[in-house]
Amino acid sequence: MVSGTANVKVRFAETDAMGVVYHANYLPWFECARLDLIEGVGLSYERLIEEGFHLPVVEVHVEYKHPARFGDEVEIRACIKSKPSVKMKVEYEARANGKLLVTGYTTHVFVNLHGAPVKPPREWTEKLSGKFAKC
Amino acid sequence: MVSGTANVKVRFAETDAMGVVYHANYLPWFECARLDLIEGVGLSYERLIEEGFHLPVVEVHVEYKHPARFGDEVEIRACIKSKPSVKMKVEYEARANGKLLVTGYTTHVFVNLHGAPVKPPREWTEKLSGKFAKC
Amino acid sequence: MVSGTANVKVRFAETDAMGVVYHANYLPWFECARLDLIEGVGLSYERLIEEGFHLPVVEVHVEYKHPARFGDEVEIRACIKSKPSVKMKVEYEARANGKLLVTGYTTHVFVNLHGAPVKPPREWTEKLSGKFAKC
Amino acid sequence: MVSGTANVKVRFAETDAMGVVYHANYLPWFECARLDLIEGVGLSYERLIEEGFHLPVVEVHVEYKHPARFGDEVEIRACIKSKPSVKMKVEYEARANGKLLVTGYTTHVFVNLHGAPVKPPREWTEKLSGKFAKC
Repeated sequence: MVSGTANVKVRFAETDAMGVVYHANYLPWFECARLDLIEGVGLSYERLIEEGFHLPVVEVHVEYKHPARFGDEVEIRACIKSKPSVKMKVEYEARANGKLLVTGYTTHVFVNLHGAPVKPPREWTEKLSGKFAKC
Repeated sequence: MVSGTANVKVRFAETDAMGVVYHANYLPWFECARLDLIEGVGLSYERLIEEGFHLPVVEVHVEYKHPARFGDEVEIRACIKSKPSVKMKVEYEARANGKLLVTGYTTHVFVNLHGAPVKPPREWTEKLSGKFAKC
Repeated sequence: MVSGTANVKVRFAETDAMGVVYHANYLPWFECARLDLIEGVGLSYERLIEEGFHLPVVEVHVEYKHPARFGDEVEIRACIKSKPSVKMKVEYEARANGKLLVTGYTTHVFVNLHGAPVKPPREWTEKLSGKFAKC
Repeated sequence: MVSGTANVKVRFAETDAMGVVYHANYLPWFECARLDLIEGVGLSYERLIEEGFHLPVVEVHVEYKHPARFGDEVEIRACIKSKPSVKMKVEYEARANGKLLVTGYTTHVFVNLHGAPVKPPREWTEKLSGKFAKC
């Protein structure tokens, strides 16, 4: 199973005047879990960049079910369910206090130094494939 | 036409180590344009809250076409294309240097003080209806 | 010794186009370490607020020695060196990779519900006194 | 007089669960006013970097007098009161609704590509000197 997790404690800076986590602030948490997934299978963003690739975010989707509040311990789970080609999709769930807070996904595109979409390095397709269980 | 705009100059704080605007930072800009739309038709969030409503974000979607960079002058346009009921959908486009940077939408739900979804105040349906031209 | 710590892994969202952590982003980290200090001696912000107090930041000072970068594991240490009265001063050091990154302090004032400066609750002076070793 | 200004409308993302602007969020505003000062005298960060210099923040100080809230129109004024040498100090005041909200300063150091402190380019000392009136 290709998944990763991040555990964050909600910072006061991440709340807004409604008393809950500002909606944009889930995206950096998603990124923490995505990084854990990438590193967890032995891949590395630094190496990807050294090899002449970039992997920008081209799409973000989030659905908000329950708010998180200051001090909450939030677990974010990232999961890749299909083998990446030019595009890579990562899905997320964030939970706290036994509740599902948000779900979402991000889509990324492998590009070369000229910004043109390209196939990912073999290492990325190999390490992110063949074992897509339910996250 | 029910639309609003915001003009922002990219702050250094909004960039990331890729040299471009961090993807989450478009959401506060969307909110600036949404606020301009709301205030532009004579509505007010403060009044909405005083009347016992809240209008949380329940869904966010963004597609990234071109990056913005430090110092860029970005125009964000918010637009409502269908009459709000319990849900209100707002669509966005951000442009700079003659390029379309991102498109996206947010969905909001009118809730009462107990958090239950409710119909919006009459003022909101009236002022946000009847004139949905192409934004 | 009245001290607390926080350990953060630098998020991509916290970097800027210079490739390092944006200078404002150390302040939320200071807050994490300050919270650890407060909770570590058995105090609670929630209880303080319930008892009719607030404890706003009235002064911030930071000196930057070395930059932190994406992925760095940063340890922030917060420390109170003198018994709080109306004011409470907290000092900080952040380190990564064996280097001192930044030092700083924040000053806070106990205020009542009318915003007037007041002496802290007895619990706060007791639990934050009598044992001010070198942090 | 060497000064610059920035006008910002407080974004909801900049507030925290106390209902006011989170204290770290004044620093990006300071930067907007500093940029206006720099550009206003005909200087350019881009050119400085092309010429092999960097100008990192090495010190930040802020004093908080009154909070700003969502929607407030804040004017930030940046001001240089003494001729820069290796160090450059910029002072700030932020005001809204006729009130002084915060005062502060930042100190910057001119460094070369190796990170060693150096004297600023002649253009910078010339354009930032000789006329230090009260801001």
